[in-house]
Amino acid sequence: METHVRHFQDELDELKRRLLKMGGLAEERLQLAVKAIVDRDLAAMDVVLSGDSDINKLHVEIDDRCVKLLALHQPMAVDLRSIVAAVKINSDLERVGDLAVNIAEAGQRYLQHAPVKELIDIPRMATIAQTMLRDALDAFVRRDLDLAHSVLTADDRLDELKSQVFRDLLAHMLNDPSTIEAALDLILVSRHLERVGDHATNVAEDVIFMVSAKDVRHQ
Amino acid sequence: METHVRHFQDELDELKRRLLKMGGLAEERLQLAVKAIVDRDLAAMDVVLSGDSDINKLHVEIDDRCVKLLALHQPMAVDLRSIVAAVKINSDLERVGDLAVNIAEAGQRYLQHAPVKELIDIPRMATIAQTMLRDALDAFVRRDLDLAHSVLTADDRLDELKSQVFRDLLAHMLNDPSTIEAALDLILVSRHLERVGDHATNVAEDVIFMVSAKDVRHQ
Repeated sequence: METHVRHFQDELDELKRRLLKMGGLAEERLQLAVKAIVDRDLAAMDVVLSGDSDINKLHVEIDDRCVKLLALHQPMAVDLRSIVAAVKINSDLERVGDLAVNIAEAGQRYLQHAPVKELIDIPRMATIAQTMLRDALDAFVRRDLDLAHSVLTADDRLDELKSQVFRDLLAHMLNDPSTIEAALDLILVSRHLERVGDHATNVAEDVIFMVSAKDVRHQ
Repeated sequence: METHVRHFQDELDELKRRLLKMGGLAEERLQLAVKAIVDRDLAAMDVVLSGDSDINKLHVEIDDRCVKLLALHQPMAVDLRSIVAAVKINSDLERVGDLAVNIAEAGQRYLQHAPVKELIDIPRMATIAQTMLRDALDAFVRRDLDLAHSVLTADDRLDELKSQVFRDLLAHMLNDPSTIEAALDLILVSRHLERVGDHATNVAEDVIFMVSAKDVRHQ
């Protein structure tokens, strides 16, 4: 029994490491996509567009690990909730990987046009979204409720920035219709970044559910 | 043991009914939001904006059911995979509920402006997305692989329509900059509908994983 428990905890730790790894990859790709837009670097954009097969492989592998852990160890209480949380976090991270591709697609179109304006708020949004994602995953690994709650607060700031970017770019479009296409793609980029924040928020809520067995969602 | 098994199958059937119920609610709200845009009906839009507390309650309840089923019955094989799939499907449906709200938000702004054009492709996108969602859930309940695969095919059509809507509205914005704000909101609506299709696709992929224990994702 002792060995069995030890083995289970090792497997659970390995599962957490894989999720952190996947989060790191997703974060890296987000950063690369936004940096490519700011630097007007089409080659870097192509790297993001060429696919996220590492993330996708991890996605399949992590789901598989979760099902095996449930089947072989029949965990209870917080361990069971951790694995259910891991299944959900895995889906969220995979979609963050997809969003990095979406950002690069909009970015690629954006670079076909003259710059609309100096990009300040979009890189700021990217930094907030990445930090939220990292904090949410750290909160998962360390079962840290305070850190999870801080992610929910950061999401409000991200939403404000998104609205500001929208108003700002709309003003550009109205003042100078030649900026319409480029501004439109930047608006889409900001929406994708907002959605990264939503996924980080989901992860944080799963952590709160896992740790406290209290469902803070929809209150 | 016989009673135990029977009880588990009853619980699993009830779980499926709850997911169908949630899917029905999400579909209804989507339909209401898009119809409100087409009919320029602000009162109907308000109904969608006033919240999706029924969906949110089901979201929490279904997660809870899944955890209890795993803890109390320690299911194996396809039953275990069904419950893991249910956890994921539950998240996808909840986000479809959120997307109905997002559509209503963009719709509310849209109705402050003169109509850009007769809306044909957007209701068509909504119909496809709703059908995909319903088919994906039916495929889950009936473990129907063919139906699940048909959802993946429908998603390609939805993506094409989304690109067509984008090109069409961009042309309107470029020809007549007074349509910029309204067209922008319609573009956002079409993106939200595309995302409903993505969630339906996720559900279909989970069904394929559940039935065949073969992971078709990322191939």
